[in-house]
Amino acid sequence: MSEPDSHWIKAVSLPPPSLQDNTADAERLIAGLKNALQTDDEIRIDIALFRKLPDTLRQCDFHVRCILLRDIGRWLLVDIHPANDTRTVVGLAVDLGTSRVALRLVNLMDGLTLAESGLDNPQLTIGPDILTRIHYAESANGLKALNDLILDGLNKAVADLCRSVGMAPEDVYIMALAGNTAMTHLFLRLDPRWLIREPYIPAVNCPGTLKAAEIGMSLNPAARLFVFPNTGSYFGGDLIAGILYAGLHRNSNTAALVDVGTNAEVVLGNENWLIACAGAAGPALESGVTKMGMMAGPGVVDKIWIDPQTCEFRLHTIEDQTPRGICGSGVIDLAAQLYLAGMIDIRGKLVPSVCGYRLKTIEGMMHVVVVPADQSATGADLTVSQADLDSLVRSKAAMFTILETITSSVGINLQDLRTFYVAGTFGSFIDARSAITIGMLPDLPLESSQPLGNSSLNGAALALTSGDRFAEIDHIRDRITYLELNVNQDFMNRFSAAKFIPHTNSALFPSVMVT
Amino acid sequence: MSEPDSHWIKAVSLPPPSLQDNTADAERLIAGLKNALQTDDEIRIDIALFRKLPDTLRQCDFHVRCILLRDIGRWLLVDIHPANDTRTVVGLAVDLGTSRVALRLVNLMDGLTLAESGLDNPQLTIGPDILTRIHYAESANGLKALNDLILDGLNKAVADLCRSVGMAPEDVYIMALAGNTAMTHLFLRLDPRWLIREPYIPAVNCPGTLKAAEIGMSLNPAARLFVFPNTGSYFGGDLIAGILYAGLHRNSNTAALVDVGTNAEVVLGNENWLIACAGAAGPALESGVTKMGMMAGPGVVDKIWIDPQTCEFRLHTIEDQTPRGICGSGVIDLAAQLYLAGMIDIRGKLVPSVCGYRLKTIEGMMHVVVVPADQSATGADLTVSQADLDSLVRSKAAMFTILETITSSVGINLQDLRTFYVAGTFGSFIDARSAITIGMLPDLPLESSQPLGNSSLNGAALALTSGDRFAEIDHIRDRITYLELNVNQDFMNRFSAAKFIPHTNSALFPSVMVT
Repeated sequence: MSEPDSHWIKAVSLPPPSLQDNTADAERLIAGLKNALQTDDEIRIDIALFRKLPDTLRQCDFHVRCILLRDIGRWLLVDIHPANDTRTVVGLAVDLGTSRVALRLVNLMDGLTLAESGLDNPQLTIGPDILTRIHYAESANGLKALNDLILDGLNKAVADLCRSVGMAPEDVYIMALAGNTAMTHLFLRLDPRWLIREPYIPAVNCPGTLKAAEIGMSLNPAARLFVFPNTGSYFGGDLIAGILYAGLHRNSNTAALVDVGTNAEVVLGNENWLIACAGAAGPALESGVTKMGMMAGPGVVDKIWIDPQTCEFRLHTIEDQTPRGICGSGVIDLAAQLYLAGMIDIRGKLVPSVCGYRLKTIEGMMHVVVVPADQSATGADLTVSQADLDSLVRSKAAMFTILETITSSVGINLQDLRTFYVAGTFGSFIDARSAITIGMLPDLPLESSQPLGNSSLNGAALALTSGDRFAEIDHIRDRITYLELNVNQDFMNRFSAAKFIPHTNSALFPSVMVT
Repeated sequence: MSEPDSHWIKAVSLPPPSLQDNTADAERLIAGLKNALQTDDEIRIDIALFRKLPDTLRQCDFHVRCILLRDIGRWLLVDIHPANDTRTVVGLAVDLGTSRVALRLVNLMDGLTLAESGLDNPQLTIGPDILTRIHYAESANGLKALNDLILDGLNKAVADLCRSVGMAPEDVYIMALAGNTAMTHLFLRLDPRWLIREPYIPAVNCPGTLKAAEIGMSLNPAARLFVFPNTGSYFGGDLIAGILYAGLHRNSNTAALVDVGTNAEVVLGNENWLIACAGAAGPALESGVTKMGMMAGPGVVDKIWIDPQTCEFRLHTIEDQTPRGICGSGVIDLAAQLYLAGMIDIRGKLVPSVCGYRLKTIEGMMHVVVVPADQSATGADLTVSQADLDSLVRSKAAMFTILETITSSVGINLQDLRTFYVAGTFGSFIDARSAITIGMLPDLPLESSQPLGNSSLNGAALALTSGDRFAEIDHIRDRITYLELNVNQDFMNRFSAAKFIPHTNSALFPSVMVT
């Protein structure tokens, strides 16, 4: 194995001390590192490392490998090993979602992924949504309870993930975490009370580089934690991680990044400017879309085709198991296919004459039966109600209106965008064709749509694999202009026009042809 | 009471957040502070303070007083109080000596001293000298035991001192500590093993700004600790504090600073350069000079006059109590007076014919009786032996040789120095006239000699009272050229010449006239 040498790990051979060269161990090491890094920036060392320097340096004859972290404006020397130590040095990327938490272990020596896992956010036991949790946080010991839940869950998940690849949490020296503003607050045990009260103020936008142990993470005792900054209560670090991963801020062409979650979050920009906007897209686009409240998982319907002639349904379920629910991307597919088959009209209303036996009235409300009881894993009909469809139409209208608003605010047309990044795990499952059909996304060539997968996790992992990312992330944050959604008459007019499928102005969607 | 506003405490009124101005609490505060401080430097905030920001800011309508620490290249925001909070904000200065520890509480709002105290270094129970303690530190759990001793002692002393002025350790936000390199290592639980082995390497020269709680000090949980840096194993932070206090580095005239402790430490310099040198001055100049091993304290002989005609002794004891021992400055006085009375010769040897009844032979060695048994508090003769005097002569010769060596190394004469700072508590008790008489200090006008008192404590306190001291201290350290004592033939020749009283070359000491 060759000498380890990456952005974070630097092999350094120091001249041993002598009567003529008798500076202290720490200053000798710092001088050697500054030379190796070709830097004049400060290199900080913690007391715990000061304490182990004399022994470690002499055990390995002053040939060491240094584990470094590039903080903004300075270096942090986190640990040293003897140069012949071949232990893998690990970084941990975390996407802290309201519903799901995703983890990835990265080998800091080569930047490659070691392992990944996910877990339901343990705070789901308190409440499914942000608002419930923040209210709970305001009760006695509520914040601590929520904080304990996520820390315990994460620490256990990290330990399991490390074990799965023969490593230990002590091998993790750097953790990068991206989440929305509320989840970040609950993770850092920051008071979230003012996030949800006008004028919606976070405790902190840029927590910066912290000691992981201080926050309660059981990693290497010297490990640092980088928390992605947020721009405000409604634009969190998960989106900044997405911008980083998409490279929006490096691109000379203007591109858009949309995250279709609980909020429809949109960023537009290029290497010169970034403008962001978020508006409640409603629960329709979250997994909670149907009564079945299904997140993507085995047996969940994620693709639907309807024969426009026969109105026959063809379904795809995750892992091809017997259907037990429908996820958000499935509902978008469903709506597009219902529309193309004439089973819903341009207002999204079910058309009984076309739906035929697929229609069922439950408690006075029309439902379309996606999977009859005898074919479903639950033994009950899997249905989507008119209310669900109405909600979806409002959500897609909100998304499109936000897209129109943000582009017109900078004087460009949606049609001028060359690239359209779709962020979030959910985003990667959305069929772009279906999203265009219902008028949620603009009618651009399909190839302009770029799913980013879990862009929050990918962005967090990217922060681990290169030297100057923290400054780059700060720079992204600083450059974002946040466009406060002004729900005025102009916005309402656009919104009303967008509440049709695909749109009142069908010229905006030339590719959507009803057969 | 007017608004508190000092180098460390800054009153800031922030515009309350609104929909139009909705940045986070932390960033709002940082922006307000940057404006108040007129700085672009980074202002760092710890997680514990992030957590209390939302509540505190709203409790006081965004009018706060900020407790700041000026670290090198950045500010640390340590705590915030409501603006109408009138609690005193306290700093703690500590001189950590091998034998004695001195503490001073400083009101950070006006820089004035609140209280002072001292204690014997609790590590004295392990051993009186540095070497014994370092060897003990190498035994199992030895370092931890030594560290616990000093931390427990300091924490107790701080609590007592705070209580004496109606304050609490939680009011202490900043601590500055100056000590020699070994004591600093033992305080920080740094491995001292290599300090005493060639090539004499400290673990750290510049520990920088640490969290006091991390080191084990029970102050405010957010309190920071500044540890004075050292230049090497033999030139510690106590001396750098002395340079800071004397202002050697700001003076256009070249001045000398000497610390007559276990080592004869000498700094020579001005605003352009600083050169330092330390050599073992031997135990003769420490309190352990005589068999009585007395530190300054009530009943200790600190001044001696001998009538050259009658050889009668006149003594001064501390607090005018019955004599129970002799301290170092007393021994210097004694030697000078013995010499002037002809009771010792120019080699420092007792002259029986002159000493008469004052002479006593104990176990084959001549002693001079300073206090006869019937007048001493101990009921035994207080004597100084020929061996003690020999040791003193060697020590003073070493000190003078070092002074000669360091001045000649930069091409100036001792006689050219205008100011001669004498550092250390011990130094302030030395009678300059006596020190010149025995040839320990050069024969300069008495007014050129400036006792600095406890210059280490005074320097530490100075670090607390002004904004940019930490950088200034670093700058002092960086500018010191350490002159390694080269014990060559030239040095030995000088040393031999200096082993006479006052010197073989009496032209160097024109003011010393034997009557």
